[in-house]
Amino acid sequence: MTFRKNEFSVGAVALAVVLASLWLPAFGIAAETAAAKTGGPKVADFKLANGLELVVIPDHRAPVVTHMIWYKVGAADETAGKSGLAHFLEHLMFKGTAKNPAGRFSTVVARIGGQENAFTSSDYTGYYQRVPSEQLRTVMEFEADRMTGLVLTDAVVLPERDVILEERNQRMENNPRARLGEQMDAALFLNHPYGKPIIGWRHEMEQLSRDDAIAFYKRFYGPNDAVLVIAGDIEPDAALKLAQDTYGKVKRVDGLAPRQRPQEPPQVSPRSLTLADPRVEQPAVQRSYLVPSFATAKANKLSGQSEALDVLGHILGTGSNSRMYRSLVVDKRVAVSAGAYYDSSALDMAKFGFYASPGAGVTLPQLEAEADAVIAQVVDKGVTDEELERAKSRMIADAIYAQDNQASMARWYGQALMTGATVEDVRTWPDRIRAVTAQQVQDVAREWLDKKRSVTGYLIKDTTAPVQQPAGIQPVKAEKRS
Amino acid sequence: MTFRKNEFSVGAVALAVVLASLWLPAFGIAAETAAAKTGGPKVADFKLANGLELVVIPDHRAPVVTHMIWYKVGAADETAGKSGLAHFLEHLMFKGTAKNPAGRFSTVVARIGGQENAFTSSDYTGYYQRVPSEQLRTVMEFEADRMTGLVLTDAVVLPERDVILEERNQRMENNPRARLGEQMDAALFLNHPYGKPIIGWRHEMEQLSRDDAIAFYKRFYGPNDAVLVIAGDIEPDAALKLAQDTYGKVKRVDGLAPRQRPQEPPQVSPRSLTLADPRVEQPAVQRSYLVPSFATAKANKLSGQSEALDVLGHILGTGSNSRMYRSLVVDKRVAVSAGAYYDSSALDMAKFGFYASPGAGVTLPQLEAEADAVIAQVVDKGVTDEELERAKSRMIADAIYAQDNQASMARWYGQALMTGATVEDVRTWPDRIRAVTAQQVQDVAREWLDKKRSVTGYLIKDTTAPVQQPAGIQPVKAEKRS
Repeated sequence: MTFRKNEFSVGAVALAVVLASLWLPAFGIAAETAAAKTGGPKVADFKLANGLELVVIPDHRAPVVTHMIWYKVGAADETAGKSGLAHFLEHLMFKGTAKNPAGRFSTVVARIGGQENAFTSSDYTGYYQRVPSEQLRTVMEFEADRMTGLVLTDAVVLPERDVILEERNQRMENNPRARLGEQMDAALFLNHPYGKPIIGWRHEMEQLSRDDAIAFYKRFYGPNDAVLVIAGDIEPDAALKLAQDTYGKVKRVDGLAPRQRPQEPPQVSPRSLTLADPRVEQPAVQRSYLVPSFATAKANKLSGQSEALDVLGHILGTGSNSRMYRSLVVDKRVAVSAGAYYDSSALDMAKFGFYASPGAGVTLPQLEAEADAVIAQVVDKGVTDEELERAKSRMIADAIYAQDNQASMARWYGQALMTGATVEDVRTWPDRIRAVTAQQVQDVAREWLDKKRSVTGYLIKDTTAPVQQPAGIQPVKAEKRS
Repeated sequence: MTFRKNEFSVGAVALAVVLASLWLPAFGIAAETAAAKTGGPKVADFKLANGLELVVIPDHRAPVVTHMIWYKVGAADETAGKSGLAHFLEHLMFKGTAKNPAGRFSTVVARIGGQENAFTSSDYTGYYQRVPSEQLRTVMEFEADRMTGLVLTDAVVLPERDVILEERNQRMENNPRARLGEQMDAALFLNHPYGKPIIGWRHEMEQLSRDDAIAFYKRFYGPNDAVLVIAGDIEPDAALKLAQDTYGKVKRVDGLAPRQRPQEPPQVSPRSLTLADPRVEQPAVQRSYLVPSFATAKANKLSGQSEALDVLGHILGTGSNSRMYRSLVVDKRVAVSAGAYYDSSALDMAKFGFYASPGAGVTLPQLEAEADAVIAQVVDKGVTDEELERAKSRMIADAIYAQDNQASMARWYGQALMTGATVEDVRTWPDRIRAVTAQQVQDVAREWLDKKRSVTGYLIKDTTAPVQQPAGIQPVKAEKRS
């Protein structure tokens, strides 16, 4: 089904886009500016009796609403050996309930001129519709119904499994850069499930069953494990009333455990790997470092470190004024593209990365050495006040401009609440960015851009004839116990 | 407690020793030879009504018996996030039952002049005693009692956790080569729990609780999940009678699932990593390839491949006549040590590896290139008939000599039965080795010694001042669900 987008970590390009979602808005200094332009969204935050959190972001510029339900479950919450299950369930959520057979929800959304979408990440799964505001109740009724009412039979589950397998083919196996990212994640995370692909390992996806999906659904889907975000042409009290009438009737899910995943041991060995693929037209070198996310920085009292990494990512690698781009592409002409990124939004640790593709006659080790020199320059000499101010202004301005998009607003709040941040954390992001100092930027570069915490990936063209890999080693079939 | 040895994969040296355990014995041509020397052990294999398998290896040369109980559970069966639990439970098994308080079992074994030991691997956990044969019933009563009768309180669990943490300090953290092996395993296995250290990741060991240990014990310990191996001065029927009188009274454990662990995706990227440690006196390069084990070769109808890998390991890297040693140490003098190994005994896939330490003035990349040249020679030209015959004769002879040791015999059968092989498979091992051809050896080298399936580790001296690593990133504390 092509209308649904999934969130995979498909490498640097996708991550650079995610970076832009880093965030803004609402009150404070940013809000003053925003208020002049948008009428000043006042974000309301409620909790229903059954545990559902409701965030409302009024925006009356057009008579539409964006309705998003976010579940606090993603690929990192899957049982070992069941990779791909969170995303598989996302697909299966469109298969109907006792009350609303498969297809009815989507048909109604289409008939009222709405759009719908769903996405799965390591930390969350979400569903959304954008509809005329008078139709909000309708989608809320449908969405509340499928929160616990999903009906699955093998007749719908098994063909959908073929769909996700084909999706893996298209998005991962036919995409050398995505394959490189998958291998790098597996090498970066020694113990944490972030090392598994969100789409799943093929051999495990092939075994996913109806029982697996139902068990996962019953374990994680319920009002007390979800956040509802509504942005658009509605007032908070009206949204609350609608939520109580619809979601308010859904029973809590029992036995929810705290979200604790296996954590990383100390990272002590610089790693590297090479992926050769016959389809590579543009070789590349990439590196991922394991660094604090916003949530882990907060939990570990590394005050301001996530924000300093945000600014570092911007100075080092966002846009054609960035250090990486200017040094490698403009000045030394050793690269045809180069950049860096940091995505703070992860419940557990986050990644900081860079990427570059060599110009003609430049080897990957040469290019890597040049990129390392750019990083060493920041570590040794820090950043200038001028580039610091330019980066901060640009980041805050981008965030304010982004308020113009209702769906982005809903998305940012949802993503923050799924990854250990609060509405207040989102609100104060611009202030915290504004407070970042040049010394902090240098400090986080020195502390965290340590190769011991990293994996370097080389993407090269495979110029040998395509060779059949040895068949995977299959497990011993159901090793008997006596 | 120092009297118990644990099985960690502590790198090449230990593995080379394990290799020698590969195996032999009992009937067939080997047994004819053996019979002349040992009186010809006839291995008996029984199954009790409660599911306990009993293997008896009579050996009447001395009035002693080796009594080993093997449980089909190891580090690879731990829940994600609970690494070290199988080994922790091994320690806790000495903490007493309602009937036999802590220390009594060990005291009795010592008083009767016996020895005891225990060990944990990825695939199994075992306990053994070597005692005068008239004391066999005594140790069987004790061991049957603690199969399901263990009593644990926080007062014994928490101090023992400090013991295993200190064991990790001594065996892993103070041993650069062990640290390298740990990092290489984590990089080799992208998905399978063999990538976790048997001793556990420190941060997870620190959280192991009494409840974790009890849950693991109740889930996995019972007669239907165990194999009892008795070697020594006893006849099969007498051993069976004793087993029925003791273990026969222990109730089955319910709900045992088949032993299925998360499996590996296709291995597509050569990986490498570097561990720098100030205590390194001798740098080294090591490589591990993911290859079939005996069990997975059998399950995948790769007939003879495990045996061909056995022979390849011997020709390539066992002893001073091996290709690696002769080429790198004797002929080219680029190494001060070099070898290769293969350990077939794993329920899931196995590792094939080589290691070398450079001579003065030789860099690790130079040494690695020389080792790669040795492998390329075997892949391209195969092995000679003469070295094939020499290797096979030596392997079979080693196995026959090893029959001389009662404990080794018990151990080999136990290990085989824990890792997907049968008594018959053990029995026919010499015949299968004898059947390996030079072509098969070349074929497995070509198919499996593919760098895409490997990780290469570099151990170097850290010559910078010992720097404090950044603190690990701690998880967000108990991320609240609503």
